Amino acid sequence: MRYGQERLRKLLQPEEVRGNFSGTVHGIASLDRAGPGELSFLSNGKYTALVPNCRASILLLPKDYVGEPPPGGAYFLLENPSLAIGILCEEIERKRNCPPKPGVHPSAVLSETAKIHPSASVGPFCVIGREVCIGARCRIGSHCTIGDRCFLGEDILLHPQVTLYPDCAIGDRCIIHSGAVVGSDGYGYVWEKGKQQKLPHVGRIVVAEEVEIGANCCIDRARFAETTIGAGTKLDNLVQIGHNVSIGKNCLLVAQSGVAGSTELGDGVVLGGQVGIAGHLKIGSGVQIAAQSGVTADLPPRSVVRGTPALPLGIAGRLYVYWKYLPELFRRVEKLEKGQENVPHQL
Amino acid sequence: MRYGQERLRKLLQPEEVRGNFSGTVHGIASLDRAGPGELSFLSNGKYTALVPNCRASILLLPKDYVGEPPPGGAYFLLENPSLAIGILCEEIERKRNCPPKPGVHPSAVLSETAKIHPSASVGPFCVIGREVCIGARCRIGSHCTIGDRCFLGEDILLHPQVTLYPDCAIGDRCIIHSGAVVGSDGYGYVWEKGKQQKLPHVGRIVVAEEVEIGANCCIDRARFAETTIGAGTKLDNLVQIGHNVSIGKNCLLVAQSGVAGSTELGDGVVLGGQVGIAGHLKIGSGVQIAAQSGVTADLPPRSVVRGTPALPLGIAGRLYVYWKYLPELFRRVEKLEKGQENVPHQL
Amino acid sequence: MRYGQERLRKLLQPEEVRGNFSGTVHGIASLDRAGPGELSFLSNGKYTALVPNCRASILLLPKDYVGEPPPGGAYFLLENPSLAIGILCEEIERKRNCPPKPGVHPSAVLSETAKIHPSASVGPFCVIGREVCIGARCRIGSHCTIGDRCFLGEDILLHPQVTLYPDCAIGDRCIIHSGAVVGSDGYGYVWEKGKQQKLPHVGRIVVAEEVEIGANCCIDRARFAETTIGAGTKLDNLVQIGHNVSIGKNCLLVAQSGVAGSTELGDGVVLGGQVGIAGHLKIGSGVQIAAQSGVTADLPPRSVVRGTPALPLGIAGRLYVYWKYLPELFRRVEKLEKGQENVPHQL
Repeated sequence: MRYGQERLRKLLQPEEVRGNFSGTVHGIASLDRAGPGELSFLSNGKYTALVPNCRASILLLPKDYVGEPPPGGAYFLLENPSLAIGILCEEIERKRNCPPKPGVHPSAVLSETAKIHPSASVGPFCVIGREVCIGARCRIGSHCTIGDRCFLGEDILLHPQVTLYPDCAIGDRCIIHSGAVVGSDGYGYVWEKGKQQKLPHVGRIVVAEEVEIGANCCIDRARFAETTIGAGTKLDNLVQIGHNVSIGKNCLLVAQSGVAGSTELGDGVVLGGQVGIAGHLKIGSGVQIAAQSGVTADLPPRSVVRGTPALPLGIAGRLYVYWKYLPELFRRVEKLEKGQENVPHQL
Repeated sequence: MRYGQERLRKLLQPEEVRGNFSGTVHGIASLDRAGPGELSFLSNGKYTALVPNCRASILLLPKDYVGEPPPGGAYFLLENPSLAIGILCEEIERKRNCPPKPGVHPSAVLSETAKIHPSASVGPFCVIGREVCIGARCRIGSHCTIGDRCFLGEDILLHPQVTLYPDCAIGDRCIIHSGAVVGSDGYGYVWEKGKQQKLPHVGRIVVAEEVEIGANCCIDRARFAETTIGAGTKLDNLVQIGHNVSIGKNCLLVAQSGVAGSTELGDGVVLGGQVGIAGHLKIGSGVQIAAQSGVTADLPPRSVVRGTPALPLGIAGRLYVYWKYLPELFRRVEKLEKGQENVPHQL
Repeated sequence: MRYGQERLRKLLQPEEVRGNFSGTVHGIASLDRAGPGELSFLSNGKYTALVPNCRASILLLPKDYVGEPPPGGAYFLLENPSLAIGILCEEIERKRNCPPKPGVHPSAVLSETAKIHPSASVGPFCVIGREVCIGARCRIGSHCTIGDRCFLGEDILLHPQVTLYPDCAIGDRCIIHSGAVVGSDGYGYVWEKGKQQKLPHVGRIVVAEEVEIGANCCIDRARFAETTIGAGTKLDNLVQIGHNVSIGKNCLLVAQSGVAGSTELGDGVVLGGQVGIAGHLKIGSGVQIAAQSGVTADLPPRSVVRGTPALPLGIAGRLYVYWKYLPELFRRVEKLEKGQENVPHQL
């Protein structure tokens, strides 16, 4: 990247520009690491004190920032510096990753009954099953396996090495990262005749639009109905979704979290990293669950919980404080016991 | 699916049929969600109260169920409704997934010394190493890599994108899901000359018959002996098995659980989701470990434990109850201390 | 393997040999399992008592071991038996895994602008992007995807099914296991216009030399700078590294651990299995974190911590002991309360 101040001004449209930088910026860096020729930004108020000493040539700041840039540098004052940096990154991304040409790579193996929109691209070594439908402008990376009867909407991006088992429906503008497995059999057995007999899973997966599924995630198909992921929900890497789970809209599931079978999440639920939720629960909309928590009971909407078993955040926080004083408490009780022994009974 | 009552009766062989449904069912759903034209079932006694209001056209019920179907509906009374639903799903699955034709896809890359049974199928883009042996009726999905000297028994199903490192033995009727990696090097280093020197892993993996390995699981090869998984054991997704681990028969390892190196599990052990077991331990047969627990000591057979560090279930449960009252306990002790101050010493 | 005593002596160069074994050893096994014709070793002092009853034909022992082998057996006294067994295993490994021939498999799909050193090997069904550079003696397994502008040094081993997104730099002698995904987008969104808007990630990944990355690990690319893994660091399987994370040299990250975005680890940090570290933290060099711990605050160098939230090991250990006596403490306080009621106030 090589951006002069004027080009950046046009791209980011700041409400105000202070100072003037006459060179070009060639990189983006954080406030404490940026040097001359780099661009930086303030997205979190707690770093405001770093701004005056930041050596970046151009700084994106919130519009209420008070202060002047150093000589030869420039401040861009904006409604939302985070969003602006996003716009810049998108532009960089677009220039760097020239998109694949439409069409199916000659090495791919397609069923005769698969329908691929002519504007879609299918990478090398893909295997596309029977009656698969792939919509306009989809980009299917190399080595993807798309099982029979999968239905992909429009503008979907599958990175390399994604596996879709049969009967998955993927909504418009979804992104699925490498190694993700969507539609594997749910984990269901019944003990019969001295064995764990496998329960067949004939259900399917429905992923709504604008869902992102991280690398090496696993989403199990339903036993006979549907496992569903709501619109706009984002799964980080290595997330596990059990069979028949239903996840609402705009949820955030941070890395290595897991949701066991048949549990329902409302809209806007946030799971921290490594959270586990037991099966057959109802987690209300807007619930937030701190990292590593374990949830074993239903949670009403907008609960904020932490710990295993999960408790309301305030209570959990207080418990962890008291917890540290537990040895002291034992000493105090011991002292009390000794004191009481000295008290003659039945005076 | 389209099933009339008579066809279902032949397939499921109920002990008794009550009522009569003259149409066809086209789907399966849970008691609370099923509608006309759907089939439902009662597998767990706690949902018995839902049966009278269930709108399904055909209901599979335990044989001791008392009650009559609504007009135009039918009840099938069976020894085990869960098993019956399984039989039905298997039939649906069989009709839907027409099995691949025997033979090796022309795109696959095979060593000249690999032996593939003529009834087995090998999918597109598979790579099969030297001296590999693949038994009768195995189905190897696309993009599988099977390392040198792997031995696969009969009727094994490898979903797409499975990696077997060299020297893995896989038993009859095993199922391995996409993204699973079997036989990767164990995690072993020795600190020498200012570096973590890698310990070579020349051992192997032995997976007994009827094991199921979930999507994106990792099973490490032994340092020089064998990592073993016993017959009938089922691994959910994203499970980690360290080097030299030995797992007994019919164990259940729920998603995201992990077993560190050289630990031995007996038969019928159940690990909840996200459980971690430290290395070099002996976990007796029939042990059950609640989700997210951390086990750092041997466990005798039939232990049921919970928590980190794991404690017997009853004790752990009681501790979590007391735990919530910890702030109150501090207040009570404080009150006692104030009370005692008022008591003159050495009366 | 078939090794006589003399050949082993030349290979392992013991400081002293006691006894004489005239046959050949065909396998390696642990002290308690080894039988005649096998070799065993003592690597951990706590197993010393097993040595006199070990039935192995050749035993590798620390040089200060006092004792004589049984008739017909031999003891090799060495500075470091673990290292010696490593040397032996390396020799076995070398003989067994004949390395792939240099060159690119005809099925691989290469960009015209990719540069592959003639001594490197690229396996079947690999896809190599634009301006990729692969150094001398690299071995790229089957089904690997190497994105645009990736730079691989020398002597790197990529097992099958590894995915490198664009702009990853991998240092000399690194090993990456199957299913690992390096360079996926970081998990970053900003809530705007009623949606989680994806933040583009235009940064890159820099993996230094001699790093090992386990099966199905995920390492996210930086938002605009670099996610870095220091030289000699070893990641076990299923480890998650967030965007902009910086990991020092010679760290050990055990299976299923995760490090959230922008956190910095110093050198020689050890994370136990399933450890989680929150984002934007500084973890000092030499820190050790026990398995399943959750870290939510900076840790000074050489801290040893345990638990969620993580506390110094000694304190955490004591707390877990007191924790078990919590029900008893409640009883004691109750007794005190009853006792105090019997004390007349204001005597």
